[in-house]
Amino acid sequence: MNVAILGGTGPQGRGLALRFARAGIPVVIGSRDGARAQGVADELNAQLDNAATISGEALRDAVTAVDEMVILAVPYSAHDATLESIRDLLPGKILIDIVVPLADGDPKKVDMPAAGSATEAAQALLGDEVPVVGALHNVSATTLNHLDQPINCDVLVCGNDLAAKEKVIELVRHLDVEAYNAGPAVNARCIEAITPILIRLNISKKVPFTHAGIRICPPGS
Amino acid sequence: MNVAILGGTGPQGRGLALRFARAGIPVVIGSRDGARAQGVADELNAQLDNAATISGEALRDAVTAVDEMVILAVPYSAHDATLESIRDLLPGKILIDIVVPLADGDPKKVDMPAAGSATEAAQALLGDEVPVVGALHNVSATTLNHLDQPINCDVLVCGNDLAAKEKVIELVRHLDVEAYNAGPAVNARCIEAITPILIRLNISKKVPFTHAGIRICPPGS
Repeated sequence: MNVAILGGTGPQGRGLALRFARAGIPVVIGSRDGARAQGVADELNAQLDNAATISGEALRDAVTAVDEMVILAVPYSAHDATLESIRDLLPGKILIDIVVPLADGDPKKVDMPAAGSATEAAQALLGDEVPVVGALHNVSATTLNHLDQPINCDVLVCGNDLAAKEKVIELVRHLDVEAYNAGPAVNARCIEAITPILIRLNISKKVPFTHAGIRICPPGS
Repeated sequence: MNVAILGGTGPQGRGLALRFARAGIPVVIGSRDGARAQGVADELNAQLDNAATISGEALRDAVTAVDEMVILAVPYSAHDATLESIRDLLPGKILIDIVVPLADGDPKKVDMPAAGSATEAAQALLGDEVPVVGALHNVSATTLNHLDQPINCDVLVCGNDLAAKEKVIELVRHLDVEAYNAGPAVNARCIEAITPILIRLNISKKVPFTHAGIRICPPGS
């Protein structure tokens, strides 16, 4: 198993690359600039003790370098254009959309696309041939990059293809987090919108911590 | 402080009535049928050891009986009609909307109103004179009615009137739960939609528990 992370030079992508590589899963960081991707990969490998397994490529090369799992971790403003630039390479693969449509200039708000959510927009753009799975929206990039900290967040996984969701859940559990099937792609309207609520709490002076996550809690807990 | 619970004869309303009364806050259950409301109040009082403080009234009488706090806990199908029937009595009070717009016949889905969420629909219907605060959507009715169990869920509170939200947060904390200001009323689109995701997990054979809640988790937890 290996994984491409498009937008892997950003904070969320870097943190995920570190965590997956540490778990023994080879990572290919994809960026518009392949040399920059390789530079970030070198930097991240230096942070890891184990035989480093992060490489860097231009976007299209990153997609073709992996078997199946492609994570889209670009800023929302680049969401559709990035997908357009790689869509012909995606059939046979699973697109894991972690993008949150934060409002321009206000990370406490979402500005949902007409399709309802980023995950639904990706599925509409890619068509039925490529399963899109929404996941990892609510995990703090800061926490991801602090490898000494556990991830204080469960992962809500949504999408219309059950088999693809189950594969993503298996992948995500390598990060030592719980992951749940949270229903069809339409539920991304809720799951993506949890992130600005967490960002609001992180900014709030009334909440005694930052980088909050959410957890599903059984009764009595 | 006292509180009216409209739709207080339903499972969510009963559980909240028991928990508030146990915390020493007098509760007036409101129902279309005042005699039925009083019958349920008697039944609930019998479950409580302390000097019982639950009474029952017809809807309009329940609203006029309390100082400020009116909880709307009716099924979604009765949401707008119930508000129409009491709207003239609400100025000077706070309407706490806990209704989740579950889809007819499928509690794993929301069927959001044109306004975006039940909380926003209530605010539009009542006008600016009455602050509407969304809260308590995600707490399991089953857990609420098991008084020996703690509430395994934080409460996300939203609305456009900060002072009203702060009063509701104070009220909700009497239930021994954490409550957070989760932003403006528009965030009810997310918060209300968390409930069917929890219901889906509760139904799932792959999740080893039912009646799940959600919690905001600090780093390292």
